Amino acid sequence: MASVEISAITQTLLTAKKAKGITFTDLEALLGRDEVWIAAVFYGQASASEDEASKLLEALGLSQDFVIELTACPAKGLGPVVPTDPLIYRFYEIMQVYGMPMKEIIHEKFGDGIMSAIDFTLDIDKVEDPKGDRVKVTMNGKFLAYKKW
Amino acid sequence: MASVEISAITQTLLTAKKAKGITFTDLEALLGRDEVWIAAVFYGQASASEDEASKLLEALGLSQDFVIELTACPAKGLGPVVPTDPLIYRFYEIMQVYGMPMKEIIHEKFGDGIMSAIDFTLDIDKVEDPKGDRVKVTMNGKFLAYKKW
Amino acid sequence: MASVEISAITQTLLTAKKAKGITFTDLEALLGRDEVWIAAVFYGQASASEDEASKLLEALGLSQDFVIELTACPAKGLGPVVPTDPLIYRFYEIMQVYGMPMKEIIHEKFGDGIMSAIDFTLDIDKVEDPKGDRVKVTMNGKFLAYKKW
Amino acid sequence: MASVEISAITQTLLTAKKAKGITFTDLEALLGRDEVWIAAVFYGQASASEDEASKLLEALGLSQDFVIELTACPAKGLGPVVPTDPLIYRFYEIMQVYGMPMKEIIHEKFGDGIMSAIDFTLDIDKVEDPKGDRVKVTMNGKFLAYKKW
Amino acid sequence: MASVEISAITQTLLTAKKAKGITFTDLEALLGRDEVWIAAVFYGQASASEDEASKLLEALGLSQDFVIELTACPAKGLGPVVPTDPLIYRFYEIMQVYGMPMKEIIHEKFGDGIMSAIDFTLDIDKVEDPKGDRVKVTMNGKFLAYKKW
Amino acid sequence: MASVEISAITQTLLTAKKAKGITFTDLEALLGRDEVWIAAVFYGQASASEDEASKLLEALGLSQDFVIELTACPAKGLGPVVPTDPLIYRFYEIMQVYGMPMKEIIHEKFGDGIMSAIDFTLDIDKVEDPKGDRVKVTMNGKFLAYKKW
Amino acid sequence: MASVEISAITQTLLTAKKAKGITFTDLEALLGRDEVWIAAVFYGQASASEDEASKLLEALGLSQDFVIELTACPAKGLGPVVPTDPLIYRFYEIMQVYGMPMKEIIHEKFGDGIMSAIDFTLDIDKVEDPKGDRVKVTMNGKFLAYKKW
Amino acid sequence: MASVEISAITQTLLTAKKAKGITFTDLEALLGRDEVWIAAVFYGQASASEDEASKLLEALGLSQDFVIELTACPAKGLGPVVPTDPLIYRFYEIMQVYGMPMKEIIHEKFGDGIMSAIDFTLDIDKVEDPKGDRVKVTMNGKFLAYKKW
Amino acid sequence: MASVEISAITQTLLTAKKAKGITFTDLEALLGRDEVWIAAVFYGQASASEDEASKLLEALGLSQDFVIELTACPAKGLGPVVPTDPLIYRFYEIMQVYGMPMKEIIHEKFGDGIMSAIDFTLDIDKVEDPKGDRVKVTMNGKFLAYKKW
Amino acid sequence: MASVEISAITQTLLTAKKAKGITFTDLEALLGRDEVWIAAVFYGQASASEDEASKLLEALGLSQDFVIELTACPAKGLGPVVPTDPLIYRFYEIMQVYGMPMKEIIHEKFGDGIMSAIDFTLDIDKVEDPKGDRVKVTMNGKFLAYKKW
Repeated sequence: MASVEISAITQTLLTAKKAKGITFTDLEALLGRDEVWIAAVFYGQASASEDEASKLLEALGLSQDFVIELTACPAKGLGPVVPTDPLIYRFYEIMQVYGMPMKEIIHEKFGDGIMSAIDFTLDIDKVEDPKGDRVKVTMNGKFLAYKKW
Repeated sequence: MASVEISAITQTLLTAKKAKGITFTDLEALLGRDEVWIAAVFYGQASASEDEASKLLEALGLSQDFVIELTACPAKGLGPVVPTDPLIYRFYEIMQVYGMPMKEIIHEKFGDGIMSAIDFTLDIDKVEDPKGDRVKVTMNGKFLAYKKW
Repeated sequence: MASVEISAITQTLLTAKKAKGITFTDLEALLGRDEVWIAAVFYGQASASEDEASKLLEALGLSQDFVIELTACPAKGLGPVVPTDPLIYRFYEIMQVYGMPMKEIIHEKFGDGIMSAIDFTLDIDKVEDPKGDRVKVTMNGKFLAYKKW
Repeated sequence: MASVEISAITQTLLTAKKAKGITFTDLEALLGRDEVWIAAVFYGQASASEDEASKLLEALGLSQDFVIELTACPAKGLGPVVPTDPLIYRFYEIMQVYGMPMKEIIHEKFGDGIMSAIDFTLDIDKVEDPKGDRVKVTMNGKFLAYKKW
Repeated sequence: MASVEISAITQTLLTAKKAKGITFTDLEALLGRDEVWIAAVFYGQASASEDEASKLLEALGLSQDFVIELTACPAKGLGPVVPTDPLIYRFYEIMQVYGMPMKEIIHEKFGDGIMSAIDFTLDIDKVEDPKGDRVKVTMNGKFLAYKKW
Repeated sequence: MASVEISAITQTLLTAKKAKGITFTDLEALLGRDEVWIAAVFYGQASASEDEASKLLEALGLSQDFVIELTACPAKGLGPVVPTDPLIYRFYEIMQVYGMPMKEIIHEKFGDGIMSAIDFTLDIDKVEDPKGDRVKVTMNGKFLAYKKW
Repeated sequence: MASVEISAITQTLLTAKKAKGITFTDLEALLGRDEVWIAAVFYGQASASEDEASKLLEALGLSQDFVIELTACPAKGLGPVVPTDPLIYRFYEIMQVYGMPMKEIIHEKFGDGIMSAIDFTLDIDKVEDPKGDRVKVTMNGKFLAYKKW
Repeated sequence: MASVEISAITQTLLTAKKAKGITFTDLEALLGRDEVWIAAVFYGQASASEDEASKLLEALGLSQDFVIELTACPAKGLGPVVPTDPLIYRFYEIMQVYGMPMKEIIHEKFGDGIMSAIDFTLDIDKVEDPKGDRVKVTMNGKFLAYKKW
Repeated sequence: MASVEISAITQTLLTAKKAKGITFTDLEALLGRDEVWIAAVFYGQASASEDEASKLLEALGLSQDFVIELTACPAKGLGPVVPTDPLIYRFYEIMQVYGMPMKEIIHEKFGDGIMSAIDFTLDIDKVEDPKGDRVKVTMNGKFLAYKKW
Repeated sequence: MASVEISAITQTLLTAKKAKGITFTDLEALLGRDEVWIAAVFYGQASASEDEASKLLEALGLSQDFVIELTACPAKGLGPVVPTDPLIYRFYEIMQVYGMPMKEIIHEKFGDGIMSAIDFTLDIDKVEDPKGDRVKVTMNGKFLAYKKW
């Protein structure tokens, strides 16, 4: 009944990680890559180098045969047009509610163009707060101006 | 042919702002509210207090009659299911590509729950960079744990 | 032909419950959790603690190996955009018909914000009535005011 | 840019109510009908009797010519398949997440059938709570068993 | 906010009918055509002969200029893919739930083919019943066998 | 390539029925239930009592183990939003074309409310006609008035 | 990655035909049925008589056990709302571009009604032309006038 | 409530044609172009030469100012994904039901490629038949083979 | 009935251009910008500098008041999910048919990343050919490699 | 979780190619066909001749049994209406943003008609650039004028 199908390789990686009791933060230390990027590799949304793939598989106690899959560039994207998972939906809602305001501000600061989602990083931090901890998501993407020709 | 319909009040506010040559950054200084939040008020996605609405209209040289509209809570959301504007689409794409990885990291750090999109702030900064300036988007939302009952 | 796919773990739990002749009301007494929440665990929409999962599996005569699945945070949501099952559709219809009126009343009573669907409980009671029994659904969610920043 | 179009009659009623400074709670006292039902009349989702319509228009200082519109049975429903307004979306999400669990519980308590959304009432209460006020929504609908023939 | 847009000619006819205090049953007697078919003419879903159009307009006290519109064959259909109006939705639900069973029975009785929705009549009767009146809908369409060639 | 997926249990029942050379009309006589309702049980759209399920399985020469499946209340509905099967589509078209006219007539005869699709029966008859046999579909559902509260 | 799923029986028939080196034109001669209709039987979109099914299976060297499947009336239709296959899309485009013009011409020639897609034949011919051969598609369907009642 | 919006120029042309009592067949004789093509010009789906536009407007008693609109190349297509008008839907259904069979036959006769919908003609004839007149639609399009490169 | 709504400013520019008898090629010479980019400015999909806007309006004999609109950054995109205009649809089809092959080739030549649609130019040339002239479309976009972090 | 399903034959070809360490550029040299076209054969979007298929399979060390699949004309198209893969989406966005401008330019240069996507070639080149390499996509399709009849 899940709204998102998990591929076999993703399942294998997640299960091995759980069995080993390793966190993404541990993997961040091991690979020298951010935990969000590593989770994206788990989900086939980012492609590792051969070396990164090899180290990751070793840490998880999995066969090096998976290197091929972790270094490929599969078709990306989540699938359902509007996500039904509440956590992911909130990011969709933010774009629905604040999309046009963000567009105004970015155009005011940078001119006509976009924030790249490719030359881009994304970090997630836990901000402790006595009134309830907060999730801090920092996106950092290159500004690309529309080329005129 | 625009993919998003702009309501009359939004159009009025944007036109007055352009005519006055005021930036959202100026309004931020004036109102003591973040520029993104003020742009959200322009687009009917956030509701101002009577005082904030009054100051904003005065700054823009518009009639105080609009206070009613700026303090109401209209139906929010952009409309089109998948946004076609390239700037806004990139945020949709980020959720498509990094949604599940973000879910993994947030659950690992916080347990089952979500980042609130209501008890939430969003800032946009320009990060100068010799290889091309970067857009930095910081989202900060309260973590809400799923209640058991 | 069913409009909703049931995952293997959900099927296993439902079959075991039927075979044991246990009701959700029995499980409510056993776990000290509401029957609706327990049914949500069955459908992978809520995650149990290790202890809750363990007790539940024991009650159903199932292997403790399933603890991992019951304590995970899988992607949530029903799937089909408009539900076709008549019972579930009625709740969709209520939102279609009474959504805007409810929005008016909540804003009048609380200001701009929402009812949380996370810090939230839901109870179902049978109200006996000589003209035909009634279903009483009580939702109770924290009001979250839109943060200004 | 609003995601829901407000009809002219709805707009007229809301504006008059705001101008008069009357709340839905005031109208509840005046008409002897629940505030949610009255808001549904405002939005053309419920039809008043001639007497109710007349009293309502008088209270709002509007012409009795609108009686015809308030007593008609227009096509109902919100329109957009998935609501984008965050407050209304939460109710959609509840059905996505808790729909199948609710179905299980209702079938266990009542057998095969549905909760009527027609022979149905809906109340909204504010529950004060030191940790943050809560919204309580109570739905009460007749159980309808599937007829066999 | 209505989910179905009413065209100008439909609105004119309905308003005149209401003003005259005429029912569709009255029009049935006048025109010698079924009330459902006449309502379909009102909604531009069926086309009248010149004579029928003329009589209908006279009965409603409207200009004969509308004869052209009532005798045309406009593009038919309700519009929204899934109807949101609860009354109309129930017929959609019936097709969702009983569609395949009806297909089995019709094929068993008639072979491969369909019930025509063109060479077709539809009647609505009120069946009084002490436990609550019932709506009886009778559809009668020619069976069309798939031609082989 | 079929547009509707048939579940395993439905396939089993249909195959056994074909092998036994039994018609739904035969099953109607055997069970004392209408053939349309029985076909709905075949398709998992209606739930039988234990006794009905048992008799049906015996008639089809199938194991009593299927009693559990025939007495459950699975998620109902056909699936595809607009049906592509021509026979089923015609009923969708009828709602598209005659939906609003039917709404007018039902409101004129009964007031604001709907025809129940739950407290509801549906019969299919073959009406012999020298110009081509006709399919007669009779729907009979309880009128439910919108409750005011 | 194909946009249309081919069912097992269709695959079996197409493979056997290819292996035998038989064309649909050969089958037309053998069965005395048009090649398009025969291809429709291959795809489960038309149902053969027992005799036709038997001859077809014999010609393809397949088991007579498939007679049951070839004589059934499965749910018809291609599935995807807008076809992505370029050959099939062109027919969708023709309807998009010439649909309303065809409607005008048919109503002018015949009055209000439709061309049946059931009492209907479709032929495909190759018209040789020095500037490039042409595909000729001839559709021939009974005109069905809207019945008044 | 019509499912297809008619543009102003289309409406003007159709009204003038009706007022003049001219048929498309008359226009075919006048312009030396097929009636279907002329109807396509009416609906903005085909563009006339200046000479054709001029003659057409003269015949309809309309201003030559419309020559510009009749000779332009506006965005084509009907709009709604699945047409709801029964006459147009039948052509959609033909593609749903016979699309893959047609693909097989065309590939068998011509190889991999498509029938052009641009280098294409479409004729509609009335075939009188004692059992009911028939609509004959003849499509004739150039075969375009997929280029290899 | 057009499938794409043209905004008022676009209509004004196109009409003035037609009245002046100026081609996009002429405007290319005048502005020193490519004709495709200029057409994109006409359609509100690209934003001009004040100087470019001013020259363009002068060439078209339009008021300088439109400078504001031509230099703004409106929401971009065509609107309909699948374009119905045959010319535009062909580009959609190319992506449907050749999308994954292009992805393979680009990844083979460049690694994981995308072609920018922002730092991007697009030219259209007419290639004369005795067998029929050809349209040559050249897209040139910066390769953006996925950043790892 | 990939948004595009890869068929078994595509998977087999891609895996063999990877194992052999052959690039599409190598295959271009071997077959005398463009690499993009060859990748299209890999994805079942183009059909090879028997000779081409045979050579390709030999080069990949695969059984000649696959010749049948590589020479067939399967249903083409990617599947998801709006592609979620970022690389492919950019081409969709180009059509969304530049579709109407391209239409204007093509009509200005060629008259009413389209660029064929069948009599069509597509090349991808790497253009080295010190500021970052660029992807150059060249499409070349025959212009097809709309036939009048």
